[in-house]
Amino acid sequence: MSGPGFDVDDPLLAAAAWSRLAEPGDEVAGALVAHLGAAGALAWLLEVRDAGLVEAPDGLLVDAGRAAASGSATAAGSTTAVRALAAAVTRWTPRLEDLDPRRELRVLEHTGGTLLLPGDPRWPRGLDDLGAGAPFALWVRGEADLAALAARSVAVVGARASTSYGEHVTAELAAGLADRGFTVVSGGAYGIDAVAHRASLAAGGATVAVMAGGVDRMYPQGNHALLARVVGAGALVAEVPPGSAPFKQRFLARNRLIAAMTRATVVVEAAWRSGALSTARRAARLLRPVGAVPGPVTSMGSAGCHQLLRDGVATCVTDAAEAAELAGTLGEDAAPERDGPVGEADGLDAATRAVLDALPVRGAADPAALTRVAGLSLPAVLGALGVLEVRGLAEQDGARWRRARRALPARAR
Amino acid sequence: MSGPGFDVDDPLLAAAAWSRLAEPGDEVAGALVAHLGAAGALAWLLEVRDAGLVEAPDGLLVDAGRAAASGSATAAGSTTAVRALAAAVTRWTPRLEDLDPRRELRVLEHTGGTLLLPGDPRWPRGLDDLGAGAPFALWVRGEADLAALAARSVAVVGARASTSYGEHVTAELAAGLADRGFTVVSGGAYGIDAVAHRASLAAGGATVAVMAGGVDRMYPQGNHALLARVVGAGALVAEVPPGSAPFKQRFLARNRLIAAMTRATVVVEAAWRSGALSTARRAARLLRPVGAVPGPVTSMGSAGCHQLLRDGVATCVTDAAEAAELAGTLGEDAAPERDGPVGEADGLDAATRAVLDALPVRGAADPAALTRVAGLSLPAVLGALGVLEVRGLAEQDGARWRRARRALPARAR
Repeated sequence: MSGPGFDVDDPLLAAAAWSRLAEPGDEVAGALVAHLGAAGALAWLLEVRDAGLVEAPDGLLVDAGRAAASGSATAAGSTTAVRALAAAVTRWTPRLEDLDPRRELRVLEHTGGTLLLPGDPRWPRGLDDLGAGAPFALWVRGEADLAALAARSVAVVGARASTSYGEHVTAELAAGLADRGFTVVSGGAYGIDAVAHRASLAAGGATVAVMAGGVDRMYPQGNHALLARVVGAGALVAEVPPGSAPFKQRFLARNRLIAAMTRATVVVEAAWRSGALSTARRAARLLRPVGAVPGPVTSMGSAGCHQLLRDGVATCVTDAAEAAELAGTLGEDAAPERDGPVGEADGLDAATRAVLDALPVRGAADPAALTRVAGLSLPAVLGALGVLEVRGLAEQDGARWRRARRALPARAR
Repeated sequence: MSGPGFDVDDPLLAAAAWSRLAEPGDEVAGALVAHLGAAGALAWLLEVRDAGLVEAPDGLLVDAGRAAASGSATAAGSTTAVRALAAAVTRWTPRLEDLDPRRELRVLEHTGGTLLLPGDPRWPRGLDDLGAGAPFALWVRGEADLAALAARSVAVVGARASTSYGEHVTAELAAGLADRGFTVVSGGAYGIDAVAHRASLAAGGATVAVMAGGVDRMYPQGNHALLARVVGAGALVAEVPPGSAPFKQRFLARNRLIAAMTRATVVVEAAWRSGALSTARRAARLLRPVGAVPGPVTSMGSAGCHQLLRDGVATCVTDAAEAAELAGTLGEDAAPERDGPVGEADGLDAATRAVLDALPVRGAADPAALTRVAGLSLPAVLGALGVLEVRGLAEQDGARWRRARRALPARAR
């Protein structure tokens, strides 16, 4: 059989080729490329195809269990690495037929985009935590320095079928994160994703949309204008080459990139089976902090968030400060402590508060009576009355004491 | 000085006396009564008062730190047990003056109530976990067997300033718990408490209101009719005798009874400084499971619940089944696993789903083309097509395959 019509030894072309040959997250391909390099792995594949016989390269260890977990149904039953590899080869070879990454790179070039390879200083290093499941390359439109964009970043994800509550909270969250210098990373989908990108843009922040299909396709079509603006204020990213369709499996695979690329993932609104939950669980497995925004228990749109909270996967996040705390630098980005409104009796010690409570709402009382009502000694009562007088909460009336008007319960004023 | 006009050796009268002499949660009194018995402690107090000199009874250990924490400002500076005890005596003696528990027992009798003492089989044993802070007695109206009521119980508490959301959720929760045979315990206050009692009553369940003041006072007045119904379907309970006013301090102290008496505490709605949070934190310290119901992050009424979730004090609870699971018997009361709606492609393995995704929305494709699009081998594609055909998701069209109408994305149908 004939070889492809391009230089298979070119590392860039070879990486681009693998991003088309293997489905995202194919860990057998990942292990092979890690072992031989993209070009070496491609040469090996061509050789194996031509020979019609699969022999594992020296020293390659393919974990058959992981290969099965990566979605290869034919490998699921095999018990040896070679069988996993052989099964993978049958998945890859049909795509060798019309393989030509130069064509896809030309499409990328037309959009002004960049093909990023692992090892590039602009490569977002968080992706390395995916191990054999890491992408072979990233097709990027917009700002190519994803390492800089991801250094201070939060994934804000959620349901396509968002409620106005979820959209409101997302907008607050994304704008607040942008204000704090965080890149908002999301999936470019309708609903929560779109609001996250839009609010980040409106706040002048950087935002990154990680696509399930090719970056030449502004999918979904209805978000075309929004995604074009994302290119101008951040980046559109995909691990599949231009022209690739956003299949369902690729959405799930894409979610691992969002989880791995960012410092934390916050799910704003998600029903039971929302894809956003897979992003959250993936982030948790990658030891990234995960936040979930609670909502009404009567809304199915928050049910997935509540499940993440129940499962202990996520921390409860109610505003941008708390989201920033998840993703940020310890100390620098700590959310402020909450304080309620300050009441009249705040800061009083227990005895003083007890004497204030013991003062009658109407009329006055002598200190001896207050000892009995408050359950305190006379010196303690007299001390407390002094404090209350200074605070303007009690007034002396001859030998008796009364509440000052401002210390009366609201209903008695 | 003269002794009181009642039989101080009567354990019932002595316990009743201590429930008036010491403020709820006074751990010095608790330690003294635990050491000498209520009658012995009362005799000791009378003796000390008459002698004008405090000497600790043999073998009594009063933890000065705990005494200070229990709210005695005068004891806060003392470093020895005797000084803590001396300070406590000055708190208690003013109330010796008009002490007569027989009068308060007569009031209780008029309401048909019961004075429960520790050790009574009807005493709710959970209170024993309060140690020296346990109540000396419980003044009960209604069903006196609190042990039976508390055996399967959940505290449902929350803000007085409830929202219609909080009230709705409380009603669902309390009714669902009543349906499952749980006693709903709350504080009889306006807002969430009142809804919890009312919904439990409406569902035919048992409910207990733990009051901060005496059980003769149906406080707050606006809940009078409701509390009267609670007496008929459960109990009204207080640790302070009839006639006692519901001071602010007593609300906080009362919360510890709710927390200790029940198997779990669920906070439905609470602002930052709601008393319901103190109940929850107390329950957590007593190693009782705590639940918090999330709500809109835009509602201050849920802010306290979210804080409990953030602090890891509470588990996220969204319905009665989950509340029952917190409080119930392992296995018996487990909340059901959640399932989302079942989709067309549910239960398909990864390869089959990939082939379904690869089938064009319009027109048909041959298996060879599907291998390239799905990234699978030909045998895998053919196997998947067979499964899809059986499931009615794909149709053969000569040598090509098309999606069945029901497998088309909604927008393409």
